[in-house]
Amino acid sequence: MDGHLQRAFDSVRQRSLLLSEPLSSEDCCAQSMPDASPVKWHLAHTTWFFETFVLAAHEASFAPFHPAFRVLFNSYYNGIGSRHPRPQRGLLTRPSLDEVHQYRADVERRMAQLLAAPCADPGLGALVELGLQHEQQHQELMLTDVKHLLAQNPLSPAYLPGASAVSNEVPPLEWLSYQGGLVEIGHAGDGFCFDNELPRHRVYVAPFALAARLVTNGEYLEFIEAGGYRDPALWLSEGWELVAAGVLAHPLYWVAGERGWNEFTLHGLAPLDLARPVTHVSLYEADAYARWRGARLPLEAEWELAVQELPAQGVPAARGSLHPAPAGPGLAQMFGACWQWTSSSYAPYPGFAPAAGVIGEYNGKFMVNQYVLRGSSCATPPGHARASYRNFFPASARWQFTGIRLAR
Amino acid sequence: MDGHLQRAFDSVRQRSLLLSEPLSSEDCCAQSMPDASPVKWHLAHTTWFFETFVLAAHEASFAPFHPAFRVLFNSYYNGIGSRHPRPQRGLLTRPSLDEVHQYRADVERRMAQLLAAPCADPGLGALVELGLQHEQQHQELMLTDVKHLLAQNPLSPAYLPGASAVSNEVPPLEWLSYQGGLVEIGHAGDGFCFDNELPRHRVYVAPFALAARLVTNGEYLEFIEAGGYRDPALWLSEGWELVAAGVLAHPLYWVAGERGWNEFTLHGLAPLDLARPVTHVSLYEADAYARWRGARLPLEAEWELAVQELPAQGVPAARGSLHPAPAGPGLAQMFGACWQWTSSSYAPYPGFAPAAGVIGEYNGKFMVNQYVLRGSSCATPPGHARASYRNFFPASARWQFTGIRLAR
Amino acid sequence: MDGHLQRAFDSVRQRSLLLSEPLSSEDCCAQSMPDASPVKWHLAHTTWFFETFVLAAHEASFAPFHPAFRVLFNSYYNGIGSRHPRPQRGLLTRPSLDEVHQYRADVERRMAQLLAAPCADPGLGALVELGLQHEQQHQELMLTDVKHLLAQNPLSPAYLPGASAVSNEVPPLEWLSYQGGLVEIGHAGDGFCFDNELPRHRVYVAPFALAARLVTNGEYLEFIEAGGYRDPALWLSEGWELVAAGVLAHPLYWVAGERGWNEFTLHGLAPLDLARPVTHVSLYEADAYARWRGARLPLEAEWELAVQELPAQGVPAARGSLHPAPAGPGLAQMFGACWQWTSSSYAPYPGFAPAAGVIGEYNGKFMVNQYVLRGSSCATPPGHARASYRNFFPASARWQFTGIRLAR
Amino acid sequence: MDGHLQRAFDSVRQRSLLLSEPLSSEDCCAQSMPDASPVKWHLAHTTWFFETFVLAAHEASFAPFHPAFRVLFNSYYNGIGSRHPRPQRGLLTRPSLDEVHQYRADVERRMAQLLAAPCADPGLGALVELGLQHEQQHQELMLTDVKHLLAQNPLSPAYLPGASAVSNEVPPLEWLSYQGGLVEIGHAGDGFCFDNELPRHRVYVAPFALAARLVTNGEYLEFIEAGGYRDPALWLSEGWELVAAGVLAHPLYWVAGERGWNEFTLHGLAPLDLARPVTHVSLYEADAYARWRGARLPLEAEWELAVQELPAQGVPAARGSLHPAPAGPGLAQMFGACWQWTSSSYAPYPGFAPAAGVIGEYNGKFMVNQYVLRGSSCATPPGHARASYRNFFPASARWQFTGIRLAR
Repeated sequence: MDGHLQRAFDSVRQRSLLLSEPLSSEDCCAQSMPDASPVKWHLAHTTWFFETFVLAAHEASFAPFHPAFRVLFNSYYNGIGSRHPRPQRGLLTRPSLDEVHQYRADVERRMAQLLAAPCADPGLGALVELGLQHEQQHQELMLTDVKHLLAQNPLSPAYLPGASAVSNEVPPLEWLSYQGGLVEIGHAGDGFCFDNELPRHRVYVAPFALAARLVTNGEYLEFIEAGGYRDPALWLSEGWELVAAGVLAHPLYWVAGERGWNEFTLHGLAPLDLARPVTHVSLYEADAYARWRGARLPLEAEWELAVQELPAQGVPAARGSLHPAPAGPGLAQMFGACWQWTSSSYAPYPGFAPAAGVIGEYNGKFMVNQYVLRGSSCATPPGHARASYRNFFPASARWQFTGIRLAR
Repeated sequence: MDGHLQRAFDSVRQRSLLLSEPLSSEDCCAQSMPDASPVKWHLAHTTWFFETFVLAAHEASFAPFHPAFRVLFNSYYNGIGSRHPRPQRGLLTRPSLDEVHQYRADVERRMAQLLAAPCADPGLGALVELGLQHEQQHQELMLTDVKHLLAQNPLSPAYLPGASAVSNEVPPLEWLSYQGGLVEIGHAGDGFCFDNELPRHRVYVAPFALAARLVTNGEYLEFIEAGGYRDPALWLSEGWELVAAGVLAHPLYWVAGERGWNEFTLHGLAPLDLARPVTHVSLYEADAYARWRGARLPLEAEWELAVQELPAQGVPAARGSLHPAPAGPGLAQMFGACWQWTSSSYAPYPGFAPAAGVIGEYNGKFMVNQYVLRGSSCATPPGHARASYRNFFPASARWQFTGIRLAR
Repeated sequence: MDGHLQRAFDSVRQRSLLLSEPLSSEDCCAQSMPDASPVKWHLAHTTWFFETFVLAAHEASFAPFHPAFRVLFNSYYNGIGSRHPRPQRGLLTRPSLDEVHQYRADVERRMAQLLAAPCADPGLGALVELGLQHEQQHQELMLTDVKHLLAQNPLSPAYLPGASAVSNEVPPLEWLSYQGGLVEIGHAGDGFCFDNELPRHRVYVAPFALAARLVTNGEYLEFIEAGGYRDPALWLSEGWELVAAGVLAHPLYWVAGERGWNEFTLHGLAPLDLARPVTHVSLYEADAYARWRGARLPLEAEWELAVQELPAQGVPAARGSLHPAPAGPGLAQMFGACWQWTSSSYAPYPGFAPAAGVIGEYNGKFMVNQYVLRGSSCATPPGHARASYRNFFPASARWQFTGIRLAR
Repeated sequence: MDGHLQRAFDSVRQRSLLLSEPLSSEDCCAQSMPDASPVKWHLAHTTWFFETFVLAAHEASFAPFHPAFRVLFNSYYNGIGSRHPRPQRGLLTRPSLDEVHQYRADVERRMAQLLAAPCADPGLGALVELGLQHEQQHQELMLTDVKHLLAQNPLSPAYLPGASAVSNEVPPLEWLSYQGGLVEIGHAGDGFCFDNELPRHRVYVAPFALAARLVTNGEYLEFIEAGGYRDPALWLSEGWELVAAGVLAHPLYWVAGERGWNEFTLHGLAPLDLARPVTHVSLYEADAYARWRGARLPLEAEWELAVQELPAQGVPAARGSLHPAPAGPGLAQMFGACWQWTSSSYAPYPGFAPAAGVIGEYNGKFMVNQYVLRGSSCATPPGHARASYRNFFPASARWQFTGIRLAR
């Protein structure tokens, strides 16, 4: 194989370790809810992916690092066999974090041997690429999952201490108009994409306008103060049930303080920055806010169309910041700030065919009762975003960096 | 107002009473699950609709039949105020069925006075029409809800005794091809439609084929016997969880007997008729079956397009039968047998605007985590079906007459 | 058999029907919670008891009235076979109330034949006596269960309209002293008793004092107004969890009104009568109240000892009243007002042996996590109470007529 | 204060650390169920007890080690204020185990100063003694809680590797007879006891016999193989519900293997040793087993009476073993093997008075719906057991070292 793949492999794998560096082995072991996984589990599972799908198929005399890991670190692949129950991942105090580091090192050594060998299967490169994209997805989850864990702690510990500077200037909201028409969306070109971005296909899009930036904390605060969480007419029925039950009352990590709202961030607890985009909201909240403003959420085709006309992928987030930054000029924050809820349910594109074999469980089987989010967030690894990328979560999910872009 | 509306009013109202005739007051009072309502509640709620939205707004000196009924028989209109908790509708042994009959008679008498008066508000006719369409929807629910109740009873009581003749001939499955293209869907013309069928709008549909009839019990039995409920590769992830938990194992009203499968119907328990369409399946089961056959579920636009080319609305079900009948020739069973799951999530059409006022809660607020069903069923009142009609239920719902039409 | 038994049989059976007379068939069918059963079910189950334990064993050519009733109306006898799930008793709209009346008449006719026949098994009389005592227990449950059902209805329907006169004079609380010592408790003599009242046995009781009457609504209101439900120091830990969760905040049927507290009774909703005993409280509330007063709940041996010294079984409740009456002079309200929580857990007496056969499931298997209540209530059938009677319910139960007698 | 107390303090505190030595910081942080707490939490909470109840009251210028710890490490003292929710103790990855060690060291340093000072409050010694007894109770919980955690791990990690030798000889079951009579139970003498062991009081005990040793695994296996878990006649009703739901099917840590039963112990997974006492059973299982053998569980008075006649507190468990050892001769295994279920519900002794102030929450508020266990277990710290000691758990609890001693 070519050295490019080996270098990409090293780079992505190294980054996972870097992300866990500010954390203790205790931090890496705990699980704060069934939807979130321990950092240690992410480190092991991404390694399991290479061991199970690459080494087991391509190593001459394959022997697993540890026979029990095939079950322990399987996420949801029924084709691989049984799994450790997801809600109990936080009880795996063994293997220790040190042992998982050894597991990573062992698999990396064997992968290097495999990648250095001649005459490899032509599908091997694609499989390794998929494994790296998969690991990047888990890198984002490591951050959002550990953020959720730390937020449960009354001590409000910071993942990376050092509060961001407070922004004061709020750019006025502008609307950008698009003609739509009979257009094409979906991945084009030779680069990597997931199966759910294919096939590229035609879709009719009516003329529409898109907000040039995301909704800010300040704007969302107006919604709250105007009684947005008290008026059922603004809400989808399911959302209102969550409001009535007290589950939804403000964005997930907003904390009422004596001097107003604070926000828990990966950099610690800080006064709410009104100029930054509101984040950690459910689809229900995004939808209610949009209705209150007389607007709506975009369709995923509208969002993709707008990005197609961009010269590049927008301005990435400030390097090293793990909280969404305020908007710049033009069509801003399409990438690098918050994932943006669309009103499109997660469904197969016309002609969608999942990959053959166990890998085919990657995306297709989740295509019900979830909604598409577009763009990327401040927690997305560099180079991982794409115009055709389709992220997806249930309408009630809030622990990702989810934000609101209006359409009309 | 013209006499036509009064005649329609009499006809629809009379039919609700007819549907409750085979039932005792005990049958009409019980509630078998939170999703289902007692027949008595349906009889009162449809009356409440006219009293609340028509009489209260148009009667010169409005006085409610009973002040507590405003709360007791409100279904989900937040704009009207508080509601009796839905799961406790079966505890309303008072008012009695007789008192609800008096309520119906009183409101009908007052409605007749209103409809006979000159110079009425031009919006009144539309409101009455909506009330009648609403009552027809509840007529279908009366049948599906009482079917669910009777099915819980170990005595397997029939709603209407008299088993249907068993059909033996299974028509072979044919596929009909459609060109698709940039087409229009949504309601057209002057007749009544619900707000969710509007606006008529353009959509691009790729070429597709549709099965000429619904999937039969015999074909579905092949799926079961081939291990369809044991192979996770066939299922959406959420569906497989329900299979693993034992919730989904066969269509809702199939009952294993000593000599094979029986099916509980509104006409009693009977041996499974292999030629009739499979019914009372979830979207998960419909989707898994389609995947197993190498096919898929239709999009709602595909379904509507196929009906647009039909000369009329298909052959209705045999008069008086409350179980779906076998298929005839041509594009069969689009109406009158089973509602047909589509893969389209229930979402607003581009430019959708709910009706003004409280009536606006009718449809829009349910547009999340539900899937569109098209056509009509053997329980749908005569004259209620439409090519553009959009029924909707959660993917797990099975107590409606839901069936499977394949596409590819 | 002697005619005395036949007369007792007729009298008890007739009373069950009388109790259901104020109710519609709808009222008799509904079930308001898993702990409560429909009146129709009580009417059928008490009949099932005679059919299953008497007729099936003693009729020459036994044939069940309906083969399915053996399962439908079995309460908890594992020895008899399977049972209809308890929480679904309210879904049995069939058999109808009329059919249950026919079932009762049929079993009564066959019982009369059996009781008129010569040479009967010597155990038959005891079994019939047990069946009648069993039916009397269910007569009390018919009243408490239907009270719970009617209380869920926003219309607050009365079981027997006609409010009781409000009492104004509150008798002052007196304490009666007892020496205790090494005494005997448990049933003595030849009359009927349940197996759990045997064997009579020795127990050492330290000197104690007992309140001469039950705690009144007025006294309990003082507890509420003094913050009794806000001070965790007064509560057993399990009770405080229920308070914190909002489950316990006042006696079950107290309803806050615009002019103070009302109480829902079988005679309808009425202003709280301060002189009557507080009722429908949990053991947790009784215990917290006692602690607040610097007292405690009695042991069951203390209660029984005090009654042994009474000349008779106290003054019964006013005839026909279904709400506890105010106290008279002396050791009052030991019977006929409210069951009285004791601090004694429900446990077998030393040497306890359950009856042989299926009837042995009557009492013993419930002897864990329940507490003994002594006395009887305004809903207890005449002649059913006894000094050695041991009623039992979980500490959280409140739908029985439970009250508080203090000890120290 | 005298040096004796300081030495006792040092000894008990040191032992807690020793118990945590075989564990990683990850092991110490996780929580496997709401009833169990992390080892780190135990280490901190026992320290919190001294800081809150001793230092805060007696230090001249008290300043907490960390202000948030007052809430974080409060177990259930409502008098102290709010608490961190019990089910979320496992999410406290901060403070780290190292910080908890610092907390311990700091409090120990300050306690040493206090204990060395002259003229201390006469109540101080009693409070320190209570704190040490409290810490010893938590030492036992550290072992049972971490055993539960490790048992959830598919790797079956041992707390202390090194399997015990398998015992082969099963001592025959002997019965010892006691006369009973009007006797006294409860703590006597000057030594330490908890408030629930007081006051010593008279109780009448009928003649009884007690099994000389605990029920063995071999005997319990006979119960299983004879269908003990399939016969409802053997079970309390609540217990049978747990059997029917699949919750109870064998002792908690028995694991079916290819060659028969294994048992998970703190020394790892090992073949079931038939001569050792059965342990980790619920009261329901103990009661059903006793009924199957034609015996019953002892009353707590019976158990205490038998021990009063013993020369000493029986033979303690083999030093260092954390699994119950086989029985020796005579009245064996009263201490040091398994806690023994009694049929006595946990209730206050006549005249019981909880301690004044917040410390009074120690025992009394749990006196409902729990059952008394007597003796001590292989996990009980040396010197902690007493004839009058009253342990208590709900009837369903199985994660303690609970065993069965028969009576009749």
